[in-house]
Amino acid sequence: MKTYNIAVIKGDGIGPEIVNEAIKVLNSVGVVENIKFNYKEYLLGGAAYDAVGDPCPDETIKGCLESDAVLFGSIGGYKWESLPKEKRPESGLLKLRKELGLFANIRPAIIFDELVNASTLKPEIIKGVDLVVVRELTGGIYFGEPRYKDKEKAYNTMIYTREEVERIAHVAFKEAMKRNKKVTSIDKANVLEVSEFWREIVEEIAKEYPEVELNHMYVDNAAMQLIRNPKQFDVILTGNIFGDILSDEASMIVGSIGLLPSASIGGRVGLFEPIHGSAPDIAGEQKANPIATILSAAMMLEYLNELNAAKRIKDAIKKVLALGYRTPDLAEFDAKEVVNTSKMGDLIAKYV
Amino acid sequence: MKTYNIAVIKGDGIGPEIVNEAIKVLNSVGVVENIKFNYKEYLLGGAAYDAVGDPCPDETIKGCLESDAVLFGSIGGYKWESLPKEKRPESGLLKLRKELGLFANIRPAIIFDELVNASTLKPEIIKGVDLVVVRELTGGIYFGEPRYKDKEKAYNTMIYTREEVERIAHVAFKEAMKRNKKVTSIDKANVLEVSEFWREIVEEIAKEYPEVELNHMYVDNAAMQLIRNPKQFDVILTGNIFGDILSDEASMIVGSIGLLPSASIGGRVGLFEPIHGSAPDIAGEQKANPIATILSAAMMLEYLNELNAAKRIKDAIKKVLALGYRTPDLAEFDAKEVVNTSKMGDLIAKYV
Ligand SMILES: CC(C)[C@H](C(=O)O)[C@@H](O)C(=O)O
Ligand SMILES: CC(C)[C@H](C(=O)O)[C@@H](O)C(=O)O
Repeated sequence: MKTYNIAVIKGDGIGPEIVNEAIKVLNSVGVVENIKFNYKEYLLGGAAYDAVGDPCPDETIKGCLESDAVLFGSIGGYKWESLPKEKRPESGLLKLRKELGLFANIRPAIIFDELVNASTLKPEIIKGVDLVVVRELTGGIYFGEPRYKDKEKAYNTMIYTREEVERIAHVAFKEAMKRNKKVTSIDKANVLEVSEFWREIVEEIAKEYPEVELNHMYVDNAAMQLIRNPKQFDVILTGNIFGDILSDEASMIVGSIGLLPSASIGGRVGLFEPIHGSAPDIAGEQKANPIATILSAAMMLEYLNELNAAKRIKDAIKKVLALGYRTPDLAEFDAKEVVNTSKMGDLIAKYV
Repeated sequence: MKTYNIAVIKGDGIGPEIVNEAIKVLNSVGVVENIKFNYKEYLLGGAAYDAVGDPCPDETIKGCLESDAVLFGSIGGYKWESLPKEKRPESGLLKLRKELGLFANIRPAIIFDELVNASTLKPEIIKGVDLVVVRELTGGIYFGEPRYKDKEKAYNTMIYTREEVERIAHVAFKEAMKRNKKVTSIDKANVLEVSEFWREIVEEIAKEYPEVELNHMYVDNAAMQLIRNPKQFDVILTGNIFGDILSDEASMIVGSIGLLPSASIGGRVGLFEPIHGSAPDIAGEQKANPIATILSAAMMLEYLNELNAAKRIKDAIKKVLALGYRTPDLAEFDAKEVVNTSKMGDLIAKYV
């Protein structure tokens, strides 16, 4: 029997509820596939601040680094919004990404046929969309120095080094090799030096992947093209802030933000989380959709090379959606039965 | 008879064709409303580089500053893409904006009832959308120093000063007072110091407009909300790069990018241009839609306080669209007759 040590970060808001369901499903698939998961919980975000006064305690970093993978829920909430920046939940998450070396964030925008009407875009525009955003996650303007603020002015620095661009470009081209062999690199090279630099290095790396078609797109045009014709994209390669904006836009295009997972990789351990936030307004009410987190657990299994187990989870989700089970967020879309968070977890666990 | 001196910059690609039609319509409305326009042409962008080796000649800056308003087409094209940055058409436009002090870019996203199907979003989502993006245009990361690039790294600086944020915030709140009294300010204050600063100053300025409701939104969330429910917005206030991305996204939401005008103001002279680009692939073919430029001319008339003349143009456009005339870009959407650029100009000129 294979054994994996999983660091579990439930976080804030709906985090605990949705992570609990992912664990339920992991345990269920573990029985079928003969895999054992040892979970150890760590604190992050508001929960960590409340407990120990630090949104990213050293123990959390250490615990994650000692595990085989990290399963993460969500952080943040109104409660912590007026804290000084370095105490806020978001700072905790940024620090964790940096300390774990998670320089690549991978967000597939998957369309579920059953939910094609959940998008505000017309079904014929989104049917068949199959794209993934590869976002640089530990560089760019998020971490750039110098950064400064006083009463009269403030600034941040959008900076990339050769090594940072090279390694994220490799992730994107490798991803493309597993998919439709097309990379669209996003920048603002008509205005920014850092984007000109980005573009040059991406071109260099592209030479190592002659089978992959590379094109470049300005970020403003990309924001349009994602709406005009999202099918044109396969792998979207972007820096940190452009990726933050475009991956959220892409997720809204496919409609059901409660369904989309993400993987952050690059260091010695990967972190897996739903793309949605902590939804403090419905926290604790068993209304949240756990599917994005359960799919994140499936991405985690792929990362651990447990491909059968991952496939079982994905198939079980399709099955449950096809049977018409929906959490309240998707009640309008061909629901046969509306179920709560825990019941949705039970159903998926049952069908794995 | 009132007389206005209009600096005309036709620019590159389809620029000359579409500006010619705007002039045709201005002349026609001038006859009815007893206004005389004196036009003087100036060079910018690729056309200026080809003629005098400089994408923004001093003569153009001087000519614009001496005029009552600037009517502008579009710049750029493949032809000039491999020039060094400071020679490229885009650099010419950025320099002109800076030299004319055009710190506020105003882009209404208007829905034309006849073209509600031209969007890839569902009609019920976009029907009734009425928003305007107020984008800071001469600061932020576009102009921030230091900026740098070598073989190993590159960076740009996103910087705002108090004065820069104050003046653009005033533009947004004043705009809101003329509209639905709601401002949504976009930033990334959970990560960036420059955004925290932006948010603080916007809050200060808001106190001077107690009737206007202010809310703040992170830029990633805004990229989602524009697709999820664009009707929630009235005035969107943003910095330069976020505004570049979000205003293009907003224009695509309403569908018909060939219809949307913009005004750049703040200095002693305003500049009016369509939001679309120079479309080099169809340049010179009389296929371009001149309506965005003609509507920009209407915004110019509003700026000159010629409100009747502006209204005549807007009504004429509505009339022509209602009659079913369409340029090729909108041929699919309830066209009764597809007409070319010049014919579209004739029709609008006729109905003013
Ligand atoms: C919470 C925030 C700091 C974070 C980011 O901007 O990276 C979030 O928006 C995300 O995309 O994971
Ligand atoms: C051409 C380019 C420099 C420009 C910008 O980014 O400002 C354009 O995209 C715009 O929005 O007017």
